[in-house]
Parts: sequence; C-alpha cells; structure tokens
Amino acid sequence: MRALVTGGAGFIGSHVVDRLLADGHAVVAYDNFATGQERFLEEASRHSQCQVVRGDILDRETLGSAVSGCDIVFHFAANADVRFGVDCPERDLRQNTIGTFTVLETMRIHGVRRIVFPSTGSVYGEPDVFPTPEDAPFPRQTSLYGAAKLAGEALVSAYCEAFGFRGYVFRFVSILGERYSHGHVFDFYRQLREHPEELRVLGDGHQRKSYLYVHDCLDAMWCALEQASDPVNIFNLGTDEYCEVNDSVRWITEGLGLAPALSYAGGVRGWVGDSPFIFLDCGRIRALGWRPRVSIREGIERTLRYLQANAWLLDAR
Amino acid sequence: MRALVTGGAGFIGSHVVDRLLADGHAVVAYDNFATGQERFLEEASRHSQCQVVRGDILDRETLGSAVSGCDIVFHFAANADVRFGVDCPERDLRQNTIGTFTVLETMRIHGVRRIVFPSTGSVYGEPDVFPTPEDAPFPRQTSLYGAAKLAGEALVSAYCEAFGFRGYVFRFVSILGERYSHGHVFDFYRQLREHPEELRVLGDGHQRKSYLYVHDCLDAMWCALEQASDPVNIFNLGTDEYCEVNDSVRWITEGLGLAPALSYAGGVRGWVGDSPFIFLDCGRIRALGWRPRVSIREGIERTLRYLQANAWLLDAR
Repeated sequence: MRALVTGGAGFIGSHVVDRLLADGHAVVAYDNFATGQERFLEEASRHSQCQVVRGDILDRETLGSAVSGCDIVFHFAANADVRFGVDCPERDLRQNTIGTFTVLETMRIHGVRRIVFPSTGSVYGEPDVFPTPEDAPFPRQTSLYGAAKLAGEALVSAYCEAFGFRGYVFRFVSILGERYSHGHVFDFYRQLREHPEELRVLGDGHQRKSYLYVHDCLDAMWCALEQASDPVNIFNLGTDEYCEVNDSVRWITEGLGLAPALSYAGGVRGWVGDSPFIFLDCGRIRALGWRPRVSIREGIERTLRYLQANAWLLDAR
Repeated sequence: MRALVTGGAGFIGSHVVDRLLADGHAVVAYDNFATGQERFLEEASRHSQCQVVRGDILDRETLGSAVSGCDIVFHFAANADVRFGVDCPERDLRQNTIGTFTVLETMRIHGVRRIVFPSTGSVYGEPDVFPTPEDAPFPRQTSLYGAAKLAGEALVSAYCEAFGFRGYVFRFVSILGERYSHGHVFDFYRQLREHPEELRVLGDGHQRKSYLYVHDCLDAMWCALEQASDPVNIFNLGTDEYCEVNDSVRWITEGLGLAPALSYAGGVRGWVGDSPFIFLDCGRIRALGWRPRVSIREGIERTLRYLQANAWLLDAR
C-alpha cells in the first residue's frame, strides 16, 4: 500500500509515517514545515520506502503530484491549537476547512478514495451527556477550531456519499506522548524551565480533561482501519478516565521535583472556546477490541520525560 | 434599525428586504445578481430607506462598506441548490462556507454582532427520527450543500461564543411562494410549458418532503427575532405535514389542466445527496406562538400561479 500523510512531520503525523513504514508500506510524508519538525522524520527519511515532500496542502499542484498513485490519505495537516482561534479566526478556516476540502478534491481528481481524518472532541461543544457518545445530541459549536473540524468531518462524509470515498473520522481527546509539541504539558514545562518557582494556570484548575497516549491512539486507528468498512466510520478516541488540570499540575511538578507557587487566571474555562469538561464514550472503538495501555498520568509523565530529553523542541517554536 | 440583507435580490432575501422596509427599517440590499433578480427589488429600490448595492460577499471591501453602520445582517446570499454539489464541489465551499465566514469576519471588524442565518433540514443528513427535532442525534452529512450549511452554522455559533454575537439559525424545509426561482415546482412547470404531454420526475416519486410558504417562513423568523434572545437561537422551520413528490406532481398537473405521461428516473433519491424523507419537528418555534397559515398544497398552487404570471423568470436563468 502507498499512503500519503499530510502533516507528516507533525506530532501525530510523524508517528503515523513511522508506523506505516514499519508495517511495510510506502509513504509520502507531506508537510510545509510551518510547525512540523524535520527531526521527527530523521529516521523515516532514511527509509527506502519513504519520500518526504515539502509542500502546503493548499498548493494543489504539489499536493496533486504527491497524492497521485496513493491508496489512502492520512490527513493530519491542520492547525491543531484550539486556543488561538479568537486571535486569528481565518487560520482555522484556511488550514482546517479549506485545507481539508483541497485534500478531498485533489484525491477525487486523482482517484484516491480512502481518507483518515483526525477530528476532535471539541466538535461536541459543551455537551450535556458524559461520557459523550458519537451520536450525542446535535451539538452547538463553541470554538472556531471545533467549527472548522466539524466542517472537515462534514466534507469527508459528503465526499463519501457523493464520490464513493471511504472515510475514517476520529474524534480525539488531547493526545500526549513523544514528539508532543504544543498543549498544556508543553506550556507548563516551558514555564517551569524558565521560572521554576512559579506556574501560571489558565482557568481555575478544575477543568476536567481526558488525554490519550499517542501510541494508544495509533493502535486505535489501526484497529478501526482493519475492522470497520462503512462508507463513513466515526469513532471517539480517548481513555475511560479524566483528570483535573490540577491533577496534571501536581504530576508535572512532582515529576520535576518542583513546588512552584501556583496562580490561576480564573474562570471555568482556560480560554474562549475551552470546554470545561471533555470525556468521551469510547464504547464503539472498544467493541472492536481496542484498549488503551497507558493511563493519563503515565502519558503525562512520558511526555514530560520526552520534553526533558528533547529541549531543542522548546526552542523550535 | 438598519439591516444588511445579503442575497437581497434573491427569492427569500428580497421578501426580507420588503418586510424590513414595511416595518420602517433602513435596508441595504446586497447582491451580486448572479442569480438574484433586479425585478424582485423593483418596488423596494424606489423606497427612500432602501439602498441596493451590487457586490459579492467574497469582496471584503464592498461588503465592509455596506455592513458598516448596520445593526443586523440577514445573510441570505448562498448557493441555494442542493442538487448540483457533485458537479461543482467548490461552489458550496466558496459561496456557502467561505462566504459565511467572510460575512462574519466583516461584521466583527465593523462591530456588527447580530446575524440571521438560513440553514437547511439537509444538515440532518438521512435522520432516523421523524419529525426530526433540532437536537436529533449528531448527524452524518450526505450532501455537499448540507456540509457547507452545517459549516456555516458552526461558524455562526463559534462567533457568538468568541465575539459576543447573537445568532439566529433557521433550518428550513424547501420554501415556496412568490419569486420562487428554483426547485421542483419551477422545474416541473418549465418542463410542462415546453412539453405539456410529458413530465420527467427525478427519483421514484415517493420521496416525502415538507414545504413552507415564504410568508409563513418570514413570520416565523420575525417571531423568533422578537422573542428569542440566547447567544445562539436555532429553529427548525417547516409545516406539520409532508407530501410525496407524486402528490405535488398531481397538484401541479391538475392546476395546469394537463395530463402528461410521467417517466421516473428511479431510485429512492432524486439525486446524490437527496434525502428521501424530510420532515422537521417545529415544536420549538410553535412554542413561541407561530403557526403556518398556508398548507403545502396551497403553497404549491400559489407558486404555480406566480410562475404563470411571471413567465420572464423561466427565461431569466
């Protein structure tokens, strides 16, 4: 099989590249390296079956050459940060909605019809049902990021119906692990590296979140790809547990042997569009036999150890 | 109050312009006249409180000048045809998703924060629950049109959350009535005018649809605008009845005194992305006191009489 991985030099995308190569597939790792890291592809790029292409997903010509001859696209290029929509509303539209459209349209033109699309638990807005199942009541969007990802999901579904595509849509909780390069563990670690005696926390610290370790996330996607074969296959991906931001703060500071003074920005949300409680019902993917192997706490600790060993990443952005 | 109506020369948009003027408001009717008709604004344009602006919603400069100083935007400019997504997937993206984003962003820049957004029952895809309520299970999109409108809804909601907008989202069944210029009554009438002895019907004729008369639709929107004041207000708008395409065929042919031979394209859907059964639960808007006054049959007959008296419209597209 030949696979295109957009965002192939990103946090999750580069793990997808590695896994596909390990499984014996040919891979085109496609990235504009705006936030992707060449070092994430250091090993992969030496593999005879791997081709690294520097290109933007909005550049139809370069993308078309890359997608041509592929059997499947893992579309991981995206603005992955839910926090900054308010500062730059156009970024989510361009990189997530128009980007996903361009990938689908380029696939259609080149006769490639299988797509894996990472979405987000943020598409549930602020749900009333916990854990939140895939068929929760029609949600109201509360973030530009969620809105853009929902638009991407909708486009994937419409292409499946109209053009015989098969789509795999995964609604992630926050993903953690090696190569993690944005989000709260990253932010906390960077703060504490500069000022070990103080830590500023967005919100009131009581936001409840679920996290999934990146290799568990990949196991789940592989499980679905092997067993699910509807035109559109939608799965929540998360753990059966959640923690408070304050739990995470404790695990991180203990892991670093620090006892910083904590200050809270206040409010039940960390930022505009932050959902104070994310906890997904993952019964659908579990019914296919998948189980996460790493707890939230262990995932946070592994992420921390990775960041400690890869300080270059803190200066890379 | 000063209102901008995008798509102000369109079928529904021009009625919105007329109603606003009749209520004593100042109106900017904005249209690129791609499908809008100058004749729909003939009366309005002579009104001292009405300004007609020729512009595209993707032209930020012209749109910005038009929106500046307004209190509310009725965003009715759109590709309103669900049928042709497959032939031109980019049209729904540009005119509906990017268009809606551009309107919202221009409103934000100019400090205008109230928006009325017409969506569609198509966002429910092919639902399992009938009549379908606003909080039906999270739907899977089956048309590019529905996907683009869902993206528009999501953007409106996200702007309400992020920037203090107030949004009114109306999920319409098909709207009928004076100035109706696309859709099945239009298509059937045009066919029968050219060839009174035969009529070609898409699908098997058993598709079940709900239709709403345009002035009932406006009454419902006005009712919601007066009484609903959440940050995001979402309402289904339809009638409590539905009919088969075959019923509509009978009413139209009887109304014209014709007995054409019928031929069916076949299949449960009229086209890719057509939903074989659209029937919305309108309890939410009814709870505010609104009732439709015109039945589906009467709405179809009025539409037919309008088209008979305005044959120019059949040649205008």
